[in-house]
Amino acid sequence: MVQNSYPELNIPARVLLSTGPVNVHPRVYKAMQTPVVGYGEAVFIPIIDGIAAMLAEVFQTKESLTMALSATGSAGIEAGMASVLEPGDVAVIGNYGFFCERMIEMARRQGAEVITVDGEWAKPLDPAAMEAELKKHKSVKLVGMVHAETSTGVSQPLAEISRMAKEHGALMFVDAVTSFGGSEVAVDEWGIDYISSASQKCLSCPPGLAPVAVSQNALETMNNRSTSPSTWYLNIPQIADYWGKDHVYHHTVPISSLYALYEGLRVILDEGLGPRYERHQRNAAALRAGLEALGLSVISDENHRLAQITPVAVPEGVDEARVRARLANDYLIEISRGLGQFAGKIWRVGLMGEASTGANLLLLLSALEEILPKEGYEVPAGAGVAAASKALAGS
Amino acid sequence: MVQNSYPELNIPARVLLSTGPVNVHPRVYKAMQTPVVGYGEAVFIPIIDGIAAMLAEVFQTKESLTMALSATGSAGIEAGMASVLEPGDVAVIGNYGFFCERMIEMARRQGAEVITVDGEWAKPLDPAAMEAELKKHKSVKLVGMVHAETSTGVSQPLAEISRMAKEHGALMFVDAVTSFGGSEVAVDEWGIDYISSASQKCLSCPPGLAPVAVSQNALETMNNRSTSPSTWYLNIPQIADYWGKDHVYHHTVPISSLYALYEGLRVILDEGLGPRYERHQRNAAALRAGLEALGLSVISDENHRLAQITPVAVPEGVDEARVRARLANDYLIEISRGLGQFAGKIWRVGLMGEASTGANLLLLLSALEEILPKEGYEVPAGAGVAAASKALAGS
Repeated sequence: MVQNSYPELNIPARVLLSTGPVNVHPRVYKAMQTPVVGYGEAVFIPIIDGIAAMLAEVFQTKESLTMALSATGSAGIEAGMASVLEPGDVAVIGNYGFFCERMIEMARRQGAEVITVDGEWAKPLDPAAMEAELKKHKSVKLVGMVHAETSTGVSQPLAEISRMAKEHGALMFVDAVTSFGGSEVAVDEWGIDYISSASQKCLSCPPGLAPVAVSQNALETMNNRSTSPSTWYLNIPQIADYWGKDHVYHHTVPISSLYALYEGLRVILDEGLGPRYERHQRNAAALRAGLEALGLSVISDENHRLAQITPVAVPEGVDEARVRARLANDYLIEISRGLGQFAGKIWRVGLMGEASTGANLLLLLSALEEILPKEGYEVPAGAGVAAASKALAGS
Repeated sequence: MVQNSYPELNIPARVLLSTGPVNVHPRVYKAMQTPVVGYGEAVFIPIIDGIAAMLAEVFQTKESLTMALSATGSAGIEAGMASVLEPGDVAVIGNYGFFCERMIEMARRQGAEVITVDGEWAKPLDPAAMEAELKKHKSVKLVGMVHAETSTGVSQPLAEISRMAKEHGALMFVDAVTSFGGSEVAVDEWGIDYISSASQKCLSCPPGLAPVAVSQNALETMNNRSTSPSTWYLNIPQIADYWGKDHVYHHTVPISSLYALYEGLRVILDEGLGPRYERHQRNAAALRAGLEALGLSVISDENHRLAQITPVAVPEGVDEARVRARLANDYLIEISRGLGQFAGKIWRVGLMGEASTGANLLLLLSALEEILPKEGYEVPAGAGVAAASKALAGS
């Protein structure tokens, strides 16, 4: 008999066009009903091995160790930083968005000397600025870059900067939280030593896991440090011993979240990486066409736009929070606010994983066509949906 | 169409009499089907507030802040250590089992001077030994103790040691991973400043969350440190800002795991804390009666036995791993091996949360009655089941 005074869970299904979490595939929800068993049992180990193998396919790596850390996306960056950096090490990190700042803060907390290479928000970082900074230092432990800046909607090219890092003997560290699973991430080809992502964006699983790929070079550096790392829970070499062939106990891993990720990766491989990335591009282009037909501006650099996140300037005089609240309450659509220097100035529309569909972007555009005039911003009726439909049909 | 080369998830339901994870209540599995929404949305915040309130009931605290960290149980201890300890701080930690050693290691990684008060495995620590150690130091930042040693099956009394910690101006830190939800944990009455647990033991949820309670005193110490903490992801004051009334964004929390915990806590309050703790005691006593009737020895100190974990000596000549494999493969029952100095010498039988039932312990005893003779250890046929049934009927 139910006797507690807390109400039963009663959450509506929503269209999640925010920066994450995004909608979860029904196959993934179903996988989470798989009975929990022990993390070291013979029946469970193939799940761990399968996830590692599928992550390697999506990370496009044959060289790196792949695994999913038992925490959400931010922990993936911290785990890498805390496992590699020792007090006094020099880390050079690109600074062109909110999540760059987070990476910088995490590196600083390891006692590293962190040098930032500052760029402009909503633009990619110029590799020449990185090169100039690297030349000033005798020894650099790592170069850190955000691949897809969720705060600005910009896709940062990595191959050239990765080459520079190698030339200066530094490890190449990448935050791929928003790109992974929605656009190409080529770990071996780009020469990335440590990269981490999250389960709840383009992988379309619930949040709770941080997939990572770690190069042999990075692992060797972690194993050869002279001081002990500040973390036990997020220490990569110890976690690698569980994900490696001997499956040595480290901590109890989140079994149900791993079932979800296993199935989420199967869904991705069933669609195919190429078709999946094309779908993300196609839908983002249609959304942009629709927004622009409503007179709204997409603020990210036009040659480096992320398909995953579209940052839209809030028109003068419009109450950005009220538009989001109307979308959530009246249309069951979530979009995201701006962060940091973009707070109050932009909306961020996500089209990631399961949420990246033509139907979803048309629904958003038609909702905006109804809401914006109520907020004092007139739009040509039907123009957004028409432009987006045309873009979808033409592609 | 399914085209990937990885098999569909196909995991049998098992009776989880291991040290965790344990069986999950059907209401919890159902709750995990609740659609994922954003962590900052008005529809989600009542889940966060409800979990905090229900955790406060189970922790028996009106004074402490309660929340669930976005990582598995071990991370709860590390978060506390990393948020409080600064390099050079003195931490005095009881050492009487495998998870005491883990706590000690985590404190050391913060650069603290860690002094251990060594006890014997499978016995509680003598408070006099703690008092003698504390008297040697002018300033102690924290006293650390494991409440329920999962490696030895011992329940450690805490109130007296907590009083000593206060007298010496130290914060009282407790690992309640295995006790919380299965036996009394009285945070305010015992004067505990930081305590952490795990979702997958007596709470009977999937692993992935670390419930904690943090006293105002501990929070103040964390806020007034002179160096920045080594962790961003597990930094308690930043996480407290999300769990507090303003719900400030820190990181994306694991939505589905939180749905599970919300429902798991409702299940616990429906049963009632008193009846739940009695059920754990009653079933543990019946299991011990059954094991002893088979001539097996329970190795934990008889006045400090945990209801949650029963440590059983492996009889001479019996292959402990083969017995566990037979239980898993032929009877779909998981039990655990020994850790550290008890590796190879004991089995550990868990009776926690949903798994603590009369039916489960009778099933285990009847399986052992069939398996042990095949391993060369004769047992009086039916004696274990008979003794346990009698204990269950008499209680």
